[in-house]
Amino acid sequence: MSTIYQATASAPVNIAVIKYWGKRDTKLILPTNSSLSVTLDQDHLRSTTTSRADPSFEHDQLWLNGKVDEIKAGGRLATCISEMKRLRKELVEDKSPNEPKLSSWKVHIASYNNFPTAAGLASSASGFAALVASLAHLYALTVSPSVLSLIARQGSGSACRSLFGGFVAWQMGTDPAGSDSLAVQVAPQEHWPQMHALICVVSDDKKGTSSTSGMQRTVETSALLQHRIKHVVPERMGAISKAILAKDFDTFAKITMADSNQFHAVALDTEPPIFYMNDVSRTIIALVVEYNRLSVASGGGYKAAYTYDAGPNAVIYALEENIKEIVQLVVSYFPQKPHEFKDVLGLFTGSTDLNTQAKVPEGFNEAVAKRFEVGAVKSLIHTRVGDGPRKLSDQEGLLAENGLPKTLA
Amino acid sequence: MSTIYQATASAPVNIAVIKYWGKRDTKLILPTNSSLSVTLDQDHLRSTTTSRADPSFEHDQLWLNGKVDEIKAGGRLATCISEMKRLRKELVEDKSPNEPKLSSWKVHIASYNNFPTAAGLASSASGFAALVASLAHLYALTVSPSVLSLIARQGSGSACRSLFGGFVAWQMGTDPAGSDSLAVQVAPQEHWPQMHALICVVSDDKKGTSSTSGMQRTVETSALLQHRIKHVVPERMGAISKAILAKDFDTFAKITMADSNQFHAVALDTEPPIFYMNDVSRTIIALVVEYNRLSVASGGGYKAAYTYDAGPNAVIYALEENIKEIVQLVVSYFPQKPHEFKDVLGLFTGSTDLNTQAKVPEGFNEAVAKRFEVGAVKSLIHTRVGDGPRKLSDQEGLLAENGLPKTLA
Repeated sequence: MSTIYQATASAPVNIAVIKYWGKRDTKLILPTNSSLSVTLDQDHLRSTTTSRADPSFEHDQLWLNGKVDEIKAGGRLATCISEMKRLRKELVEDKSPNEPKLSSWKVHIASYNNFPTAAGLASSASGFAALVASLAHLYALTVSPSVLSLIARQGSGSACRSLFGGFVAWQMGTDPAGSDSLAVQVAPQEHWPQMHALICVVSDDKKGTSSTSGMQRTVETSALLQHRIKHVVPERMGAISKAILAKDFDTFAKITMADSNQFHAVALDTEPPIFYMNDVSRTIIALVVEYNRLSVASGGGYKAAYTYDAGPNAVIYALEENIKEIVQLVVSYFPQKPHEFKDVLGLFTGSTDLNTQAKVPEGFNEAVAKRFEVGAVKSLIHTRVGDGPRKLSDQEGLLAENGLPKTLA
Repeated sequence: MSTIYQATASAPVNIAVIKYWGKRDTKLILPTNSSLSVTLDQDHLRSTTTSRADPSFEHDQLWLNGKVDEIKAGGRLATCISEMKRLRKELVEDKSPNEPKLSSWKVHIASYNNFPTAAGLASSASGFAALVASLAHLYALTVSPSVLSLIARQGSGSACRSLFGGFVAWQMGTDPAGSDSLAVQVAPQEHWPQMHALICVVSDDKKGTSSTSGMQRTVETSALLQHRIKHVVPERMGAISKAILAKDFDTFAKITMADSNQFHAVALDTEPPIFYMNDVSRTIIALVVEYNRLSVASGGGYKAAYTYDAGPNAVIYALEENIKEIVQLVVSYFPQKPHEFKDVLGLFTGSTDLNTQAKVPEGFNEAVAKRFEVGAVKSLIHTRVGDGPRKLSDQEGLLAENGLPKTLA
């Protein structure tokens, strides 16, 4: 019986606080500005990927959530796989001639996201990070996550930031070949584990503009984007890194919200204009603004920071101690289907219907927004800062003995 | 029986295509950038003002739509009235000692807007222009509209543009005292009478941020506004003036929409962010974008240009020949209360219910937006480019013999 060459890894989602919007090289996926994100806990949201190399395989093949995902020649998946094979050859096989020539074998890859696509959470970041991490284990590469981030970046730009846990910067770099456009860790998960996140999944009946085509339209038509790139982002990257290292939530929140606003501002300054936020998104902003106003009026600092990616979903960053109050506030305006909320972090022990917890803080000006019907915010996901990609055991592998996904076998 | 010193004038509304947003001097109302607008026909929308000077009056007094509007010392109304009195004294009384000393008498002023405040159309522009125009006639001033615009500007910035008909630029000027921050006519109404406008009055249940406080927050907090002021607006002012002179609707439309987008982008880049457009506004944008795409795909140019001020209402500029098609398109997505539309320009002769006219152009992708319920767009107002302030007859005056508004007398 021959050895099976296989590895399984999981990787986290990340949500940027300094936004990536615009490529200077669309093939290599080199951004027009640096960005910075918080890696979310993969105990809650993750992609899991198993990769196997076998001399009997006839083609590189990939299944996503049990369905074949075509690997197009010259496409992003093909680029990531061939780059990983190149590393295997250069770093392992060329140096140690006794190692099996895995780089010349075809691979089968099965990947699975544990969160519904309908949630509107970008799965490409965790997906490409898990792909690259599983291939790195399969190929026994002993390279840093930053090196792997160079390859994940070519799958999906923001995927490079999911190679690290904690707080992660994607440095835009200057090399036209992209060798220095990579992710680095600003601070690990353990530095500031009190950083929690509440994802408000917002319904939208409009078809959004894809981020790939949207960002290039902004690059081509927005007069304001160039100012953002040259003058605003560099200063904010430094300031928010400093705030993270100092665990200064107030500053972290102000910069996070300003940068979310500015990303949506340059999207709006595009021809034709791009809108990702809708009236529900705007309402959540109004709630967070009033919540922070109240805190400041009582002598405190900002206690919540909203951020929006290329869709109407809100992610609210807040310290652990304030999350319960924020959930209660959001539910006051956006009633939930009973029993929908998974209280994985034990905020409401003993409670079965989140709506019974609805409550606005004392002194909160309830007139800042109107109350919505059940369903406007479809669900709430409570999570926190998490670690980087994990190597999983063979028992957790997604491929059956025959080299096909277990779900198909 | 003594002479009655009284004059009545009406003045139009104007809707900017290059937006005014930000003051460099809040007392003198000096803007951070130049702006440009189209004056709308006062046959449809107007403010009418009667001013009377009388030695028996004890105070300067003003009634707006029949209600007393307090003239606060040092306020904008008081400034406009005292500046007009100053002109009367300097230009008339000091030079012709036989002229009555009207500048030393108190005035009674009655003003009336023929459009509902609920329509969300800024009435301050037409209101201050009518005030200044009626006082200019009362005081027998023979000064140019640009000189009067210097005074109207101090009542409400955009009011200075309502002193002219046609296409009007408000030149920001450089003098710290404001002597060169005035309106000039780029082209008269007769130059391009085919320029029509469709105002879509949009419901909103959110209380908006006032433009006075909103624009100053943008000046203080938006990193993008400075780039707009220095680099974008100067170029656009030149380009749109050229397009107007060449009657180049395609270029006019592109710049108009880009500048509306950018104004809302800098509002969004403000802390906390300012939103004036809602989901209905966004939908009207989607319709205009698709309508133009279809025209371009058929070898034509842009046929419609949306613009939004500090509220959710859309103003769609279009040439006369396309207005009917645009009304039919808007009504397809936003059904109207029957008999609400006043077809003052005779688009639909013989038709009594606008909804029976709903129709999308052939080839229009209907999936770009969903259809709304009656009431989302409360009403449609069809109008066109118009003339500047008009002197009206005494019969049209708003003050009764006793010096009080006729509505009260």
